Amino acid sequence: MDNIRLTENDGLWILDQTLLPGEEKESRLQSAEDMYEAIASLRVRGAPAIGIFAAYCMYLLAKGIAEAAPQTFHDKLAKYGAYLNSSRPTAVNLNWAIEKMLGAAKDNLDKPRDELLATLRREAVGIHGDDIAKCRTISEYGLTLIQDGDGILTHCNAGPLATSKYGTALGPILLGAERGMRFHVYADETRPLLQGARLTAYELARAGIPATLICDNMASIVMRNGWVRACFVGCDRVAANGDVANKIGTSGVAILAKHYGVPFYVLGPTSTIDMGCATGADIEIELRDPEEIRSKFYAKPMAPAGVKCYNPAFDVTDHALITAIVTEKGICREPYGERIRYNKFRTIEQAATKREDMAALAW
Amino acid sequence: MDNIRLTENDGLWILDQTLLPGEEKESRLQSAEDMYEAIASLRVRGAPAIGIFAAYCMYLLAKGIAEAAPQTFHDKLAKYGAYLNSSRPTAVNLNWAIEKMLGAAKDNLDKPRDELLATLRREAVGIHGDDIAKCRTISEYGLTLIQDGDGILTHCNAGPLATSKYGTALGPILLGAERGMRFHVYADETRPLLQGARLTAYELARAGIPATLICDNMASIVMRNGWVRACFVGCDRVAANGDVANKIGTSGVAILAKHYGVPFYVLGPTSTIDMGCATGADIEIELRDPEEIRSKFYAKPMAPAGVKCYNPAFDVTDHALITAIVTEKGICREPYGERIRYNKFRTIEQAATKREDMAALAW
Repeated sequence: MDNIRLTENDGLWILDQTLLPGEEKESRLQSAEDMYEAIASLRVRGAPAIGIFAAYCMYLLAKGIAEAAPQTFHDKLAKYGAYLNSSRPTAVNLNWAIEKMLGAAKDNLDKPRDELLATLRREAVGIHGDDIAKCRTISEYGLTLIQDGDGILTHCNAGPLATSKYGTALGPILLGAERGMRFHVYADETRPLLQGARLTAYELARAGIPATLICDNMASIVMRNGWVRACFVGCDRVAANGDVANKIGTSGVAILAKHYGVPFYVLGPTSTIDMGCATGADIEIELRDPEEIRSKFYAKPMAPAGVKCYNPAFDVTDHALITAIVTEKGICREPYGERIRYNKFRTIEQAATKREDMAALAW
Repeated sequence: MDNIRLTENDGLWILDQTLLPGEEKESRLQSAEDMYEAIASLRVRGAPAIGIFAAYCMYLLAKGIAEAAPQTFHDKLAKYGAYLNSSRPTAVNLNWAIEKMLGAAKDNLDKPRDELLATLRREAVGIHGDDIAKCRTISEYGLTLIQDGDGILTHCNAGPLATSKYGTALGPILLGAERGMRFHVYADETRPLLQGARLTAYELARAGIPATLICDNMASIVMRNGWVRACFVGCDRVAANGDVANKIGTSGVAILAKHYGVPFYVLGPTSTIDMGCATGADIEIELRDPEEIRSKFYAKPMAPAGVKCYNPAFDVTDHALITAIVTEKGICREPYGERIRYNKFRTIEQAATKREDMAALAW
């Protein structure tokens, strides 16, 4: 079952990730409000996936205002874009996809409306298709960093549910498994919303990959036990200096990895790189409802009523803690500044995708 | 409401900590099986508290075999002791208290049985009273390490519920608050059993101390934000070289603290020091039921059925990560080897308890 799909007759369906792993249920999204809610409440989640989803949403919302005059059409669509973009502040892919769709609309505003809509549909489908190709390439690059039999620790979920097909952080593991390699994944459960327990463990079980679920605070003992050869995580926004915003707790995993001498890799498409953020300090961190810590998922509240909670959805990992950032264009290491710029702006054709070339390309 | 109390007519009651914070309910323990279960299922928990509880249990179990002949009495009591001691392997205080009670029984085996039982009762009450005094002294020492207005991060629960009266890790904060000082506590929720959310947040709320509950994986961002001036944690067993076994996740907090330049303090009575363990590698780590990660507390399971879980209840923090170990006999710093030995064996009278002397004594 795909995490996001647009049917031939333009039905936009998502696999509702808030119901996993207990229930596999698709929901159809039609109104802008429902689309916003689906992102804000994490029915669809993962930086690349919300980019893909937002692109489809923009197409459908454009279709709904097809009768409007060009300027009204454009203004209304821009308003929808700003609205969807406000659903979650940290992942840049959301904004990136919305801007891409708005750009395509603007460039074709004088075309017949059905032609414009066909262009927008192609654009959204293209963003989705691109992500599949990028995840595949990221997976190829990532696979050069690990060996058959390795234990890999991951945090949150950056698998197929968060992206498309292979995923980013889980991509090398899924791709390697297809080729008969065996990895053992240690999945942080990832409080408070348990994406590791609910989604990563679910995806790995479906793929038949050996996995051990741990609480976030067990990553230290697991590394101390010598079970982890590399950490693979996704990313929601990468600053120009290589600082990475990702799911809350990622920076802690990076600090542990450094302490124990375990390489720490960040994997994501270059659409996650935001050259507008000079450092991680420029990245807005989403603060979420304290009830996610106090009571969500539980049969009854697990903290006294009224206790104050701090619930940031993301944290920033300092680039000095990151062994390499893996994108669809290559493997990027310190010094990140210039290399990220190069990586961001060279074309995919300029970057090799053949596995044999990767070691040479890994700069 | 006390966490453990023995009534005048020998009723042994505990505040059932598995029901907190939702329900404040006392349970009376009478059979050895119920006593074992109360420890194993964490109805009574915290290294010092299970020592106190086990002492009372041994007294009541001795009372139940009062009619037996001396050797039979001794053998049966030793058997009870071994049984209770097997309920949880990591905290040394359990074994320490049981051995103390068995020693008192052995020394008085030839006395009239009612006299022997009176001695055992006094011994247990004495262990409890000693712990109150020790916690108070530990709190005094700990308070010299922090300043009015500081933010303090703690992991798990080492407050009154885990000990008696002041607690160990929370002791300096509660004592300081009594003196009008203001601290802000960041409490790790402490998965999987949420002692931080259920117990520490509850104790702090009752004491009127400002606190913020966080998920374990948020300790990194909280330290990065500059909100934490010191970490205070308890301990379940301290090895002769200063390695510390404490609640799972403690070692991760220590590594983060070192990374961010925050002092990391361990607080506990010298009964927690086990000179029989040369290093942390000698400490047995309790592994608990995977369902504590997969499904416990939740309205429905949060991980796919059958996913493997690793659930160690404790981890070992390397002594090199610990700024100081605070006992009722002083503040102990690197090099730990000789200083722990000195600290363990000098008498409480040899150690100063007046606050003014402490800076000088802090070796």
